[in-house]
Amino acid sequence: MFRTNTCGELRISNVGSTVILAGWVQRIRKMGGMTFVDLRDRYGITQLVFNSDVNADLHEAANHLGREFVIQVTGTVAERSSKNSNIPTGDIEIIASDLKVLNRSDVPPFTIEDETDGGDDLRMRYRYLDLRRGSVRRNLELRHRMAFEIRRYLDSKGFLEVETPVLIKSTPEGARDFVVPSRMNPGEFYALPQSPQTFKQLLMVSGFDRYFQIVKCFRDEDLRADRQPEFTQIDCEMSFVEQEDVLQMFEGLVKHIFKYVKDIDFTEPFPRMTWADAMRLYGSDKPDTRFGMEFVELKDLTVGKGFSVMDDAEYVGAIVAPGCADYTRKQLDQLTDFVKRSQIGAKGMMWVKFEADGSVKSSVSKFYGEDELRAWGERGNAKPGDLMLILCGQTMRTRKQLCELRLEMGSRLGLRDPQNFSCLWVVDFPLFEWDDETQRYYAMHHPFTSPNPEDIDKLDSDTGAVRATAYDMVVNGNELGGGSIRIHDAKLQDKMFRLLGLSEEDAQYKFGFLMNAFKFGAPPHGGLAFGFDRFVSILAGLDSIRDVIAFPKNNSGRDTMIDAPSRIDDSQLQELCIDVVLPEEK
Amino acid sequence: MFRTNTCGELRISNVGSTVILAGWVQRIRKMGGMTFVDLRDRYGITQLVFNSDVNADLHEAANHLGREFVIQVTGTVAERSSKNSNIPTGDIEIIASDLKVLNRSDVPPFTIEDETDGGDDLRMRYRYLDLRRGSVRRNLELRHRMAFEIRRYLDSKGFLEVETPVLIKSTPEGARDFVVPSRMNPGEFYALPQSPQTFKQLLMVSGFDRYFQIVKCFRDEDLRADRQPEFTQIDCEMSFVEQEDVLQMFEGLVKHIFKYVKDIDFTEPFPRMTWADAMRLYGSDKPDTRFGMEFVELKDLTVGKGFSVMDDAEYVGAIVAPGCADYTRKQLDQLTDFVKRSQIGAKGMMWVKFEADGSVKSSVSKFYGEDELRAWGERGNAKPGDLMLILCGQTMRTRKQLCELRLEMGSRLGLRDPQNFSCLWVVDFPLFEWDDETQRYYAMHHPFTSPNPEDIDKLDSDTGAVRATAYDMVVNGNELGGGSIRIHDAKLQDKMFRLLGLSEEDAQYKFGFLMNAFKFGAPPHGGLAFGFDRFVSILAGLDSIRDVIAFPKNNSGRDTMIDAPSRIDDSQLQELCIDVVLPEEK
Repeated sequence: MFRTNTCGELRISNVGSTVILAGWVQRIRKMGGMTFVDLRDRYGITQLVFNSDVNADLHEAANHLGREFVIQVTGTVAERSSKNSNIPTGDIEIIASDLKVLNRSDVPPFTIEDETDGGDDLRMRYRYLDLRRGSVRRNLELRHRMAFEIRRYLDSKGFLEVETPVLIKSTPEGARDFVVPSRMNPGEFYALPQSPQTFKQLLMVSGFDRYFQIVKCFRDEDLRADRQPEFTQIDCEMSFVEQEDVLQMFEGLVKHIFKYVKDIDFTEPFPRMTWADAMRLYGSDKPDTRFGMEFVELKDLTVGKGFSVMDDAEYVGAIVAPGCADYTRKQLDQLTDFVKRSQIGAKGMMWVKFEADGSVKSSVSKFYGEDELRAWGERGNAKPGDLMLILCGQTMRTRKQLCELRLEMGSRLGLRDPQNFSCLWVVDFPLFEWDDETQRYYAMHHPFTSPNPEDIDKLDSDTGAVRATAYDMVVNGNELGGGSIRIHDAKLQDKMFRLLGLSEEDAQYKFGFLMNAFKFGAPPHGGLAFGFDRFVSILAGLDSIRDVIAFPKNNSGRDTMIDAPSRIDDSQLQELCIDVVLPEEK
Repeated sequence: MFRTNTCGELRISNVGSTVILAGWVQRIRKMGGMTFVDLRDRYGITQLVFNSDVNADLHEAANHLGREFVIQVTGTVAERSSKNSNIPTGDIEIIASDLKVLNRSDVPPFTIEDETDGGDDLRMRYRYLDLRRGSVRRNLELRHRMAFEIRRYLDSKGFLEVETPVLIKSTPEGARDFVVPSRMNPGEFYALPQSPQTFKQLLMVSGFDRYFQIVKCFRDEDLRADRQPEFTQIDCEMSFVEQEDVLQMFEGLVKHIFKYVKDIDFTEPFPRMTWADAMRLYGSDKPDTRFGMEFVELKDLTVGKGFSVMDDAEYVGAIVAPGCADYTRKQLDQLTDFVKRSQIGAKGMMWVKFEADGSVKSSVSKFYGEDELRAWGERGNAKPGDLMLILCGQTMRTRKQLCELRLEMGSRLGLRDPQNFSCLWVVDFPLFEWDDETQRYYAMHHPFTSPNPEDIDKLDSDTGAVRATAYDMVVNGNELGGGSIRIHDAKLQDKMFRLLGLSEEDAQYKFGFLMNAFKFGAPPHGGLAFGFDRFVSILAGLDSIRDVIAFPKNNSGRDTMIDAPSRIDDSQLQELCIDVVLPEEK
């Protein structure tokens, strides 16, 4: 037996007991003839005392311990004279009577503390040491707890977790597939799933009725800061449901998680917003609703006063930042620079200050009189002391810019507390997105999404205006997940493929098995998928999903700890009937 | 709303209620002016009644339904005049007042019944229809329930489920890796994990203390009847443990599963058997202990009587088949043919009949007198009426043959009831296996397994005799899982690699990250992994794991439903910097 107790559980009631603890040396303090060691494990920290008056050899041995040594200590629980109220074991200490070094440790390349001196790259290379830090480990404990509660909720609702295959068929639609050469079928390849979408629909055809899976998915994309080539989805599907059934079920899931994991009780239904409203009021299909500052449209009020910038603009929109009328020239310049950054791309920013004393100042007072500016303020409910910030240009583009500005102002005003959670359903997404470059429609969600029944007659006549029966769950400006009611009619599915420019042959090659399945009695069905990594990072109050993944990859898709990917043996290549052909110039 | 109730929940207490049901048409019976439809969903079957006297149009519509049509029916719950006690809804029927066809169905290629007329290949190509069969679906329901209970148990014991990466590094040791070309790192490949072994050990170095994961693993092997290229493991690891701690913990898990999933209470500790005893008594490291028939060694009793077959044999072993003395010549010939099959490879079989009347007959009575044969019987505790079957030859080979014969006799005697469960720990495995062909030792478990501390001084002097701290859980003759206490000392690990013929350079290249991790305070740790597919199939009483996998692959690694693997576009190959090079002649 290596231990009688963990380093997190001894209390004042244990005083007098003889215990054995094992763990890592967090800290050593030598004070005259006494040496204090903080012993750490996953469960906590317990103070050990080595007294040279009691046992000089043991005291000497303790003095030779180093940081991160793994030790086993026998001793007696004693009440501390100076208690530490910051840790649950702070009332006691262990008077050591025996010490065994189970393993030594080199000096770690960075400190094993919540706040470490290690840079990102170093911590990733030594991820096994990084994971010793409480702040990192707690994220993975949260992840475990969430996965468990998700399963508990869905199981209680009759969902079956079914594992779908990882080695599937490549369907070059959307993102790139990772592929796997098949040794037994030379020249052929499996693909890793971007999602189990078709399989979960097949399970509905199979009558599984309620399916879920917490499952790894794969996308071979150029990795932005917060993408990973492998990521985890909470994938769900239900039969004999309409949109309302799905929303109710998964609103219930999100509330269950908040309640049992964060002890936060959402008693009211989550608000719902149409995609059109979300774009109009927030310039985003995933608005951060922790704060207001909705867009105010000013086009009609700004036109015809000789200011060509506004006159020529398709759209003029503003936000009202409360209490910011005292912003300095420098602060306003900073905001202008912010919106003019290439990632945002605005040409410029206009402002109106509604001063506390009732006066009005503006960057465009050359073109607009005080009354006109006041009318703008009235439309935006601006109060004395508020600042109005205005952008103009092409509608969708300007809305996106204004969205960034709004978020920036929210951050500056401290309105985006990561531990304050605002959940929202965005509904009535468009079914199609028009792509100017390729001059065709793309499915906004995916090609299996059902049109809104009210809009089916517009499929040919007004394709772009057709709404989908699709929905997203948005939390704090993040898309937590989304889904749709699926097409369960083979003919309608066929029509969708045609509208998306897929020939009958292509559709048959790529999705033939699904089309065939639909001939044998497919039930009405729908579902959704949550991004599990994102879900965890939101509850952890973190910006990046990398911090909630045990062994993440970097932006080049590399795991620097194990040094993958790597070259493989020629004999392996030969068995797989493939050759590496590097481009001539690199 | 598509339904008020499922097809499995209405009872006599619901009589009089108006309900809406939705599901699949299982069966239609027309009896004069009445048409009866069995409506099926995941939850059960409910009888619908269409009466032409009540509603002629509706009755007519019902007569046009076909098997597997998806329909929605409104009606009133009524008590049946002739009740069906075979199904929980058998007391009631629905008097239909409205019928809506939600989807039509082609005639399915095989019957959707527990016993179907569809062959294996057909059922796999239409797996989505095969999964509609209750007998198949129940396996996956069992799988879900087991996964849930495994997580519930391990969570209650403080285990954290941590997802380890799927895109890792190829380490050509043991079975072949599946590999994944990296587009972002041309010429380099990821590998899919054969197990998360090194990652779970790293998590122990990280102080995670108790880890588990229900996780897909991958092996590119030539597929025997019951192997799959992707399979699922219950992967577990604990820190600060000795073998006894691990056995206790996971014996608890297995008992928990039997209790909460099968309602079987194992109150006694599982028996334990050394590997040496298992080989001696059963000729297998995974003995089927549902029945006795242990091996009896007869070498000393058979030698020197002029029968060269036995005299020349290194080993003479027998089993005593109770009550089989009346086996006919034909039955004995069948058994001889059985052991002479090329898969088993015995040269022949000898027998002794201890007749009920006290007489003794034998195939070797030419060489052995009745007293000698009786002495054999005494050693094997043969009773009047029993049959002794004898094989001889090289020790290990003959034991394996005798093992097959024992299992065959167990089956013939009905001693291997799939719903009778016998669990066993096999312990004290050898650390190494000698391979004659390559003239070197291989790790019997894997290179991270710790030697038994008592045998460490024999590592150089008597390598083959060193026992591992390794253990297997065996149920009904199947290896359910196995594991070991791991080496946590970098020097000992290094020595192991040397004994396994891995140079320092090789070891560093393949496992350098683990070796490096061990320098920073690795705790003593150990664990095990269960084969989840096998675990489910055993509890389902099935021989094959294929029946407990939703979308399995065939023996060529193909999914015939989705037709994977398949060719991929040249542009995909180009992006991945690889070429297909098919062998000239095929």
